[in-house]
Amino acid sequence: MSRFWSDIVNKLTPYVPGEQPALARPVKLNTNENPYAPSPRVVDAIRRELGEEGDSLRKYPDPTAHALRTTIAQHHGLRVEQVFVGNGSDEVLAHTFQALLKHDKPIRFPDITYSFYPVYAQLYGVAFDAVPLNADFGIDVDDYRAPNGGVLLPNPNAPTGRALPLAEIKVLLAANPDSVVVIDEAYVDFGAESAVTLIDENPNLLVVQTLSKARSLAGMRVGFALGHEALIEALTRVKDSFNSYPLDRLAQVAAIAAVEDDDWFRETCTKVMASRERLTVELQTLGFDVVPSAANFVFARHPEHDAATLAARLKEKEIFVRHFKLPRIDQHLRITIGTDAECDALLAALRAVL
Amino acid sequence: MSRFWSDIVNKLTPYVPGEQPALARPVKLNTNENPYAPSPRVVDAIRRELGEEGDSLRKYPDPTAHALRTTIAQHHGLRVEQVFVGNGSDEVLAHTFQALLKHDKPIRFPDITYSFYPVYAQLYGVAFDAVPLNADFGIDVDDYRAPNGGVLLPNPNAPTGRALPLAEIKVLLAANPDSVVVIDEAYVDFGAESAVTLIDENPNLLVVQTLSKARSLAGMRVGFALGHEALIEALTRVKDSFNSYPLDRLAQVAAIAAVEDDDWFRETCTKVMASRERLTVELQTLGFDVVPSAANFVFARHPEHDAATLAARLKEKEIFVRHFKLPRIDQHLRITIGTDAECDALLAALRAVL
Repeated sequence: MSRFWSDIVNKLTPYVPGEQPALARPVKLNTNENPYAPSPRVVDAIRRELGEEGDSLRKYPDPTAHALRTTIAQHHGLRVEQVFVGNGSDEVLAHTFQALLKHDKPIRFPDITYSFYPVYAQLYGVAFDAVPLNADFGIDVDDYRAPNGGVLLPNPNAPTGRALPLAEIKVLLAANPDSVVVIDEAYVDFGAESAVTLIDENPNLLVVQTLSKARSLAGMRVGFALGHEALIEALTRVKDSFNSYPLDRLAQVAAIAAVEDDDWFRETCTKVMASRERLTVELQTLGFDVVPSAANFVFARHPEHDAATLAARLKEKEIFVRHFKLPRIDQHLRITIGTDAECDALLAALRAVL
Repeated sequence: MSRFWSDIVNKLTPYVPGEQPALARPVKLNTNENPYAPSPRVVDAIRRELGEEGDSLRKYPDPTAHALRTTIAQHHGLRVEQVFVGNGSDEVLAHTFQALLKHDKPIRFPDITYSFYPVYAQLYGVAFDAVPLNADFGIDVDDYRAPNGGVLLPNPNAPTGRALPLAEIKVLLAANPDSVVVIDEAYVDFGAESAVTLIDENPNLLVVQTLSKARSLAGMRVGFALGHEALIEALTRVKDSFNSYPLDRLAQVAAIAAVEDDDWFRETCTKVMASRERLTVELQTLGFDVVPSAANFVFARHPEHDAATLAARLKEKEIFVRHFKLPRIDQHLRITIGTDAECDALLAALRAVL
């Protein structure tokens, strides 16, 4: 506290990201990073932009990221005016709260979801109703029919991993023609259906994606939003009133290369999904209840072992998983899908601990 | 306009950055970039982080940028808790408006200054009084004695280039013990006195700097704020409620290398300052009035030629300078100091045009 702080700062409870352990070789299954390196084309693109002397780094990047937005538009069968890019999908979501979700009525999002949402709401003074997931951690779209200032859902949801079928998203959109519906598809490439195909028919739909997960670029901070031109323009107006150049030169060329390499992307996702199925079975064999996951993580609880204790015991063995001290989920662990070797290390440690 | 936009978006008039021409070899003197490449250590550091396969890019960067903040702290003789880093000083300034300048009373900044300030004020609903510069485009600190919610000055000022002596900053601080005083030192390394030395005695002083100008890293987007721990904590709370990881992995290592190479930095600044003195004399010979500059640009007007017309004629010759269609300065041009060859190209073009 300080008398120099604004009221907003006094009231904030900031988001706490997963730990980044300063260990040589931790088994890091706590922040949903991809266990596989990005496409080799990414490295080539960065080296090319860098050149011998890094001379281009002295110049500002393209503030509109036009080449990157064009690449993303082509990949998704959209026009460049339907694409907004930001410094990670967290920045894209923050601008979305300020530009498209701040209205008179409260917005609606699940009670168990990405824990950054209530933080954004606080930062921008956006009222919200947290809508309880059902007992199976599923989303019932009928719960989103009440008048609202906007609807925000991750698909698949985090930290549960549960996916919502496209047919349900259509029902949700039909029920909310006067609100912006934001589908946060950070994990969509690991087995859920993207709502991108619904954009042309739904001027109120904003789809948010990231290159941090399926494209293995968490370290480069690139996220984007897809939607009707008017929604994209709102985000651009906020961005241009906040930071003209949110994506640096190397991030822009890295992202273009990552989006272009579809083969690498598909191969990586396939490997992660295969490991997820294997890990799920093994965890069930150890007695865990595992929520069916369409993401690059599983959400699991053991009926006989306290989740916080399990996480602490694993950490002693330099294996990091995520535990949320939150209502309804404080007996669950969110476990990122690592390489098969990392999954095996986790399973061995769990066998020793249980 | 769209019914989905928030009120804020409807009211915004976004900032417009200088043009980034898509030409092979423009003489680009419009966005105050450094004409010299960054330190060779920057390129080495990026290559090292990248490695053979770019494997580290799949992992999130350090959200606290601890190594970079430590390097900056050491460079300025401060503690790491006195350093905040952001995605360019524009992001740092945006967070400053939200965290430290949003109070009941209006803040004060000059009427002629960085044109992003009123945009931030609009974005965050911060009332402001624009305080007129004197007839010589100088800042009179006595104009900043009125009760206020904060004071914000660039030193040297932009787009004038005029510097305020440290003694005047001390007077300003003494007159405003109950407000946060932000000194935006984007251009300080080209000949002005930094207020960093005043931080320990003034818990209300925040100094903002950037690596985009003197460190030749506009393309990598790194800025920082220095001040009392409580001010830094306010910025951190906003940042952690907005985007956990604003600086990507390559930006962090590039920035560390750039701050560490003091010899390169000094040599570059010396060259730019020498070119500025030469360009100033040559412009005066052509009949221009040139405001005395402590920055990497000059602000000049020609009594017999309209500034907008001059800028347009130069653009035809692929020479870009900045013209602001704003009260009091619409007859001035802001000209970035390029290499001596670029300055010569500008002078030759001006001789032909005048």
